[in-house]
Amino acid sequence: MNTALRLAVLPLLTVLLATPVGAQTRRATPEPDLERTAAQLRDRAATDATAYEFVEGLTTEIGPRQAGTPAERRAAEWAAARMRRLGFDRVSIEEFPLAAWVRGEEEAVILGANPQRVELDALGGSSSTPPGGIEAEVVIFDTLEALQAAPAGSLRGRIAMVNRRMTRTQTGQGYGPVSAGRSGGPRAAAQAGAVAFLLRSAGTDSHRFAHTGATAYPEGRQPIPSAAVSNPDADQIERLARRGPVRMRLVLNSTLQTASRSQNVVAEIRGRERPDEVVLLGCHLDSWDQGTGAIDDAAGCAIVTGAAKLIADLPRNPRRTIRVVLFGAEEVSQPGGQGLSGARFHAARADAPNIVLAAESDFGAGPIYSVQLPAAAAGTEFARAFSRVILPTGALFDASPATGSGPDIGPLIAAHRTPPAELQQDGTDYFDFHHTPDDTLDKIKPEALRQNVAVWAAFAWMAAESGFDFRGAPAPTPTR
Amino acid sequence: MNTALRLAVLPLLTVLLATPVGAQTRRATPEPDLERTAAQLRDRAATDATAYEFVEGLTTEIGPRQAGTPAERRAAEWAAARMRRLGFDRVSIEEFPLAAWVRGEEEAVILGANPQRVELDALGGSSSTPPGGIEAEVVIFDTLEALQAAPAGSLRGRIAMVNRRMTRTQTGQGYGPVSAGRSGGPRAAAQAGAVAFLLRSAGTDSHRFAHTGATAYPEGRQPIPSAAVSNPDADQIERLARRGPVRMRLVLNSTLQTASRSQNVVAEIRGRERPDEVVLLGCHLDSWDQGTGAIDDAAGCAIVTGAAKLIADLPRNPRRTIRVVLFGAEEVSQPGGQGLSGARFHAARADAPNIVLAAESDFGAGPIYSVQLPAAAAGTEFARAFSRVILPTGALFDASPATGSGPDIGPLIAAHRTPPAELQQDGTDYFDFHHTPDDTLDKIKPEALRQNVAVWAAFAWMAAESGFDFRGAPAPTPTR
Repeated sequence: MNTALRLAVLPLLTVLLATPVGAQTRRATPEPDLERTAAQLRDRAATDATAYEFVEGLTTEIGPRQAGTPAERRAAEWAAARMRRLGFDRVSIEEFPLAAWVRGEEEAVILGANPQRVELDALGGSSSTPPGGIEAEVVIFDTLEALQAAPAGSLRGRIAMVNRRMTRTQTGQGYGPVSAGRSGGPRAAAQAGAVAFLLRSAGTDSHRFAHTGATAYPEGRQPIPSAAVSNPDADQIERLARRGPVRMRLVLNSTLQTASRSQNVVAEIRGRERPDEVVLLGCHLDSWDQGTGAIDDAAGCAIVTGAAKLIADLPRNPRRTIRVVLFGAEEVSQPGGQGLSGARFHAARADAPNIVLAAESDFGAGPIYSVQLPAAAAGTEFARAFSRVILPTGALFDASPATGSGPDIGPLIAAHRTPPAELQQDGTDYFDFHHTPDDTLDKIKPEALRQNVAVWAAFAWMAAESGFDFRGAPAPTPTR
Repeated sequence: MNTALRLAVLPLLTVLLATPVGAQTRRATPEPDLERTAAQLRDRAATDATAYEFVEGLTTEIGPRQAGTPAERRAAEWAAARMRRLGFDRVSIEEFPLAAWVRGEEEAVILGANPQRVELDALGGSSSTPPGGIEAEVVIFDTLEALQAAPAGSLRGRIAMVNRRMTRTQTGQGYGPVSAGRSGGPRAAAQAGAVAFLLRSAGTDSHRFAHTGATAYPEGRQPIPSAAVSNPDADQIERLARRGPVRMRLVLNSTLQTASRSQNVVAEIRGRERPDEVVLLGCHLDSWDQGTGAIDDAAGCAIVTGAAKLIADLPRNPRRTIRVVLFGAEEVSQPGGQGLSGARFHAARADAPNIVLAAESDFGAGPIYSVQLPAAAAGTEFARAFSRVILPTGALFDASPATGSGPDIGPLIAAHRTPPAELQQDGTDYFDFHHTPDDTLDKIKPEALRQNVAVWAAFAWMAAESGFDFRGAPAPTPTR
């Protein structure tokens, strides 16, 4: 959510909080126990070590766990064992096929009068350079659109580079325009005849780490070798290009292992009254290959696991089932252009239509600043009670309906119109580390992690214990 | 200078400033033109682009320039050409022999149940691992002293790691204890029988860059392969070691090129009355091999060159000669245990005894917060005038005598008792980037660079134009 929107929500929130409890219940009667227990869970999160122990354990004992590799498999077994120990009722691993792209040798140098090495990393799906590498001149484009406008053949024998800078924001909305360059750049460069594609890293830092990431590759792999350049190196290429032509040698090797497997880890707290109604809490277990995937997304898995564990520790289970899904292979595009293999596999399960609400945590470990629920909740006692519970954590209830922007619940929404909720985290520094070797445990603040658990625990409990129908039509605007 | 000392200096400074001009001149009569011109130079620095253009040009066009390599030679030629263009009277390159240590293949992995890569870089002077690398268990020591206390043979077949954390300070004084571990660790580890040495990086950051650096190696090269581990990786090894034995495989290859050459670049503004009296402004031109050496030490060379250039632009030269020396090979130890080959070569010149004052800039591009002059200047009108000139830049005059802690003027002080001055920079973030691939131009704030030039220009002008005898005895404490 952007800041302007957040400010617009504040007066509305004030009105909601000022409305007497029970005055406008319409869809759900006030449930004092529901709210009281939610507040208890919220407060217990302040001293519960489950989430930090999860993220510490996963990033330390497994480390990097790229989709389709033995490390991802070890991570799934590690997580399943941990979740059994935490007291979930049912824990299973669901496996699916995957084409795994694996990085090989990478080297880049600027040739000529100013010889020096360039720090880069191949993008997911990159093809390999021919033996001996590529030598070619770099042509810089300010945006993907400018590259797409290059006439066919105009970049023959050149390396095309998109040099768009990312804007730092709380919401992460600076990411869209630069990640579009990552997804679409290789294809556009190839269509104009380029022999390779370079991207200024989709990141807000100025450290010498390239930010890797998936690309869209309809034909199986990218037509040309494609890599992200660290931001200081992109600056360097830009400065040298002002002085004259920049010629580079690139060696990028990688393999596509088409017969790999990946897996989701599924752990449930079975509903005591309505076990077939499922509240799904998601995250992804795989990471990129060079960091230990602490913020992306061990943190998210730690948060949803830590929240569910607080609920599992209650004297009795909630009415509905809570299902934590640690998705596999979130970071990977697949030949044919589709990605999210784990999410699509789960959305194709026979019981997927039973999921009454879905939310995911996949934006690091920054504190939650606002929460959006499905449209049906707007103006209801459920929403008012929820907003009261989370306010002490610093998270605001945002009355605009959740749209479900997270990747791994996308296939559920698309296939089953599953109602989504969104717990919005402060991502101001998320893209300093995202998809780099620097995504490690030290980037997580334990206090912010606990705040996330507090909000998620209250959210999951209320969604699972209440009978509220999140698929229902929005309530009419109350008359005041 | 530490903060406590700086606070102690403030009252003294107030007394100095309150003393009427000319009241206690003893050694130097008031020279209104001297001070007026110094103030003009200081103010011109605010709009002069020389220093930034120097650091931008050197780091962009040459990039990394490790001592003894062709890149360092190119840097010297680049700098000499630049200094001729800037209007120095005499520019020369003085060459000397060097044994150049050059990094090769580097790989480190943790073996066993938690397999993962470790980010490290060999330390200067490291020997190579045998073919196929080394596999051994890591033994962690909190300090160098603890490692030194390990009995002979007690580490046979092990990898010794010193895990001391560096403290962040303005002055950089946290560096001494950790760099001592770097210098002395390899030898101590070998003496206890270890097959390799690892150091938690001597750096204040938490990014996945190892901080390399020179080691002391009396026998030509280190007896064992030696490397720095990035701070997040040191954390990881520490966490894994709490769970059980940590076994690693190390591959570290490097070469010692004993017949290399390095060079100093020497540029002078000839004194109009006393050309044989030399005020020396130093920095070093070489850098470590992975960053572009922006803060270490292109910034220092840019600062002293930019300051001298403002003086070269005056209608007439100062009385004494100003000599800018861009030292070569500052970062390199040499077989036999000595380093600073460029500095020692210069200190052995026939005219070195003529150097009446020496100072160097080698601590990044942070602003100068205080300046110390030789003991002879304490309590003099020269010091009072100087303190008045620099105060508007935010730099304070520190009445305690300079000791000459910079590396490249050390040999001059040792051989000729050359009086030193110290222009103390804020190094709070210097060790976030020092000796890493991340030492690049983007880490320099142009405004702070200009402040340095302002102080250095005023300093160099006053030292060269005044007849003040910096070798003289300290003035008696004034009676008040």
